[in-house]
Amino acid sequence: MQISARNQLKGKVTAVTLGSVMAEVVVTLADGQEIVSAITRNSAESLNLKAGDEVMAIIKSTEVMIGKEA
Amino acid sequence: MQISARNQLKGKVTAVTLGSVMAEVVVTLADGQEIVSAITRNSAESLNLKAGDEVMAIIKSTEVMIGKEA
Amino acid sequence: MQISARNQLKGKVTAVTLGSVMAEVVVTLADGQEIVSAITRNSAESLNLKAGDEVMAIIKSTEVMIGKEA
Amino acid sequence: MQISARNQLKGKVTAVTLGSVMAEVVVTLADGQEIVSAITRNSAESLNLKAGDEVMAIIKSTEVMIGKEA
Amino acid sequence: MQISARNQLKGKVTAVTLGSVMAEVVVTLADGQEIVSAITRNSAESLNLKAGDEVMAIIKSTEVMIGKEA
Amino acid sequence: MQISARNQLKGKVTAVTLGSVMAEVVVTLADGQEIVSAITRNSAESLNLKAGDEVMAIIKSTEVMIGKEA
Repeated sequence: MQISARNQLKGKVTAVTLGSVMAEVVVTLADGQEIVSAITRNSAESLNLKAGDEVMAIIKSTEVMIGKEA
Repeated sequence: MQISARNQLKGKVTAVTLGSVMAEVVVTLADGQEIVSAITRNSAESLNLKAGDEVMAIIKSTEVMIGKEA
Repeated sequence: MQISARNQLKGKVTAVTLGSVMAEVVVTLADGQEIVSAITRNSAESLNLKAGDEVMAIIKSTEVMIGKEA
Repeated sequence: MQISARNQLKGKVTAVTLGSVMAEVVVTLADGQEIVSAITRNSAESLNLKAGDEVMAIIKSTEVMIGKEA
Repeated sequence: MQISARNQLKGKVTAVTLGSVMAEVVVTLADGQEIVSAITRNSAESLNLKAGDEVMAIIKSTEVMIGKEA
Repeated sequence: MQISARNQLKGKVTAVTLGSVMAEVVVTLADGQEIVSAITRNSAESLNLKAGDEVMAIIKSTEVMIGKEA
């Protein structure tokens, strides 16, 4: 399935922290930069996410801000 | 100023498209991957964004989804 | 690819409006309710969205609010 | 009060899970499809959400992505 | 209708800019601070938004970041 | 660093609740209105957020909805 979200960054799961309702997932990109995702615990469990998994970090473009040194 | 958004990815602006109310900004990361941001036109103009600018793509972790091959 | 977004609602595209940078896509669900999506124009064009297409409206759970009559 | 969010889907609460800071609320639409919402625990408690409540799942159009089979 | 969004800030519309698909609405709070909202043009028109309108700026808590001087 | 997010509201932290994965931060603006933010626990800890801190509540304009009495 093709998704309209313009940002789909390949990486590897390096940490999964399961909370009561939410979960934090850390994905390391090929160049070593990290992306942190906060999804529901149920999502993390239904995707059976664990360290080492090859995944995509998916981000809708309207959720991306830009910062520029003044 | 330190910001709570966990995802701050360094890159260079490679394209800016100004629309009537919104603007699309393409940022290329060090490893060649692209991030697309949709911000308001006023934001793009007040940051004076143009190709070649060194910027940060800033994304709150609650906006990042994960995709995994079944 | 399995996606962490918990909400994936099946429907049919009933309207696509292309703007300068953004696009509005109306999806009608099986029960007749409508979902409106605002994505970038480039996304709408790369998915070649047009009326009649079978699609999924995909929404991360952290983006869903609840309203209740007092 | 009229709200600008274009998506207001009627349904019934079928599950509420309270976490330490967040809460997960499952709403079943008339056609049986489910919508999952992640809101703060305080919100869930102040709305006194419980199974059986008639509610609206409210979603801003900029938060809705589209998926289409290739 | 009570809404789960925790942030509902009272203010007055001071500017509405209609674009092709989106619209920018500026709301001035009682203390003079401004809030800028980007909604769809259709939303702005269906609410018949115009300068002088008393409105609420509504923001889900998961969309609010925090910045702190280092 | 200049950020594209149009909404940057000055205030003081009045409460921080740390959950398993998320944290809730309440910021009181100069005029007494409150803004509630849900960020990850790690963010709250890395910013060392505590009551009395002078902070900015930062909100992208695409995340702001408008409500108007009918």
